[in-house]
Amino acid sequence: MTAAQRRWRLDLAYRGQDFHGFAPQPGIATVAGALSGTLVTVLRLDEPPRLVCAGRTDTGVHALGQVVHVDLPEPLFDDERGDPSERLARSCNRLLAPSVVVTSCAPAPDGFDARHSALARSYRYLVHDAPVSSPLLEGIAWRTPGPLDVRAMTQAAYAVLGEHDFRAFCRRPSELGPDEPIVRRVLDVAVEVVDDALGVASVGTLIRIDLTAQAFCHQMVRSIVAVLVESGRHACSAADVTEHLRSGERSGLPAPAPPEGLCLMSVAYA
Amino acid sequence: MTAAQRRWRLDLAYRGQDFHGFAPQPGIATVAGALSGTLVTVLRLDEPPRLVCAGRTDTGVHALGQVVHVDLPEPLFDDERGDPSERLARSCNRLLAPSVVVTSCAPAPDGFDARHSALARSYRYLVHDAPVSSPLLEGIAWRTPGPLDVRAMTQAAYAVLGEHDFRAFCRRPSELGPDEPIVRRVLDVAVEVVDDALGVASVGTLIRIDLTAQAFCHQMVRSIVAVLVESGRHACSAADVTEHLRSGERSGLPAPAPPEGLCLMSVAYA
Repeated sequence: MTAAQRRWRLDLAYRGQDFHGFAPQPGIATVAGALSGTLVTVLRLDEPPRLVCAGRTDTGVHALGQVVHVDLPEPLFDDERGDPSERLARSCNRLLAPSVVVTSCAPAPDGFDARHSALARSYRYLVHDAPVSSPLLEGIAWRTPGPLDVRAMTQAAYAVLGEHDFRAFCRRPSELGPDEPIVRRVLDVAVEVVDDALGVASVGTLIRIDLTAQAFCHQMVRSIVAVLVESGRHACSAADVTEHLRSGERSGLPAPAPPEGLCLMSVAYA
Repeated sequence: MTAAQRRWRLDLAYRGQDFHGFAPQPGIATVAGALSGTLVTVLRLDEPPRLVCAGRTDTGVHALGQVVHVDLPEPLFDDERGDPSERLARSCNRLLAPSVVVTSCAPAPDGFDARHSALARSYRYLVHDAPVSSPLLEGIAWRTPGPLDVRAMTQAAYAVLGEHDFRAFCRRPSELGPDEPIVRRVLDVAVEVVDDALGVASVGTLIRIDLTAQAFCHQMVRSIVAVLVESGRHACSAADVTEHLRSGERSGLPAPAPPEGLCLMSVAYA
């Protein structure tokens, strides 16, 4: 960061199916690509600024509480019309909404790093247990035929609480050897049937799965959700989950749940 | 209905933004057009069957509980593989979901008419009172900046309860003269703040408006919703609503609320 720059914190919401994930990729629509391109336009920058996010999301995965930091020239605007934070958010939203919405924008505190300062990430996953899909839940819930036993799902969910080697539940990063453990600490987990208070499901039951961890490895939430849904069908049990955590063995586990039900809800900082 | 036909009742859910309303129009994607075309394919009919619905919906308006009747040849299928009701629903859903979903399909009771046998229609309208939109509510809620006073909205809503001349609150059908009353009976109305149990709104408040009437005239729900939202801003009052009902005067009323927040939830029969 040069002397003429200042670090900003931007809170973002976005619709996963409009992008090929968060991380920038040349020539492909990504959240980071769309937002940094918009910052170039709005602030008349010479090149796209680098965005650092709290939690990278895959293609199709939504966010309502993604947090990014970005270093931008100071002052932001040549003239002094209005509050620069509000003006930046409004200008970005004019170009990006509704696919991406800047819900909050402010100068970052000293030493703030969206990724490294984060203490915890919270995701929710929405399962629609129904024989047919609801047109209004398309793209925001995983519709899967049940019936799902939410009590059994909850018992299996408790098995992932605490610190474990989650290598059976994630896509291994290329830089890690095949036997290296991937240790993460799950701080909170909840499975509950939720009311369709909005009136968006025609039939069936809506099940919300919430997971909070200091950090997640790649596809960890979706892999856990898939095994919880299997538990809801009595096709596996809490003991099976514990055994996969102990052995690190992936085989026997279902494929990760699809991305559309997943949403990064919030990131906690000190 | 010829001797070789039987009347069926189909319950439908659909996503309003995928269609130019329910009613068939040549060369335009409509719900009735899509469904009757699919029935031609699935049942190998010579021509599209006529669909009669309980409540015609405009472009962009959703349904989770639309009811239609249609007269179809008996037997439905040449062979006898499986239950014909389930097979018809499954075959339609394979071609139409997720834009349109047949949630239920059964032979209609004697004398059943989806439109004329209906005793009441229930609609819900979803308002998102927030300074910025939520990407996951796009197309299913009307985002409008508040704050909205839900108590004032409720008071204004009570003014429409019961039997009134609603000509100020609807688009006049071409066959009616300018001074003819358009009398409808509103059976139930409710305005309430609902929890975002699904986790789809990043910021703001979700307000659900429910309206049930024996029948509605064209754009009546959206016109009422618009005036309730104005009441929530203290830009009008229950007394103003009563005065418009008395005078039949449209001028001074806001434009109808946009279609995306509206959904036909259910239809009651004897």
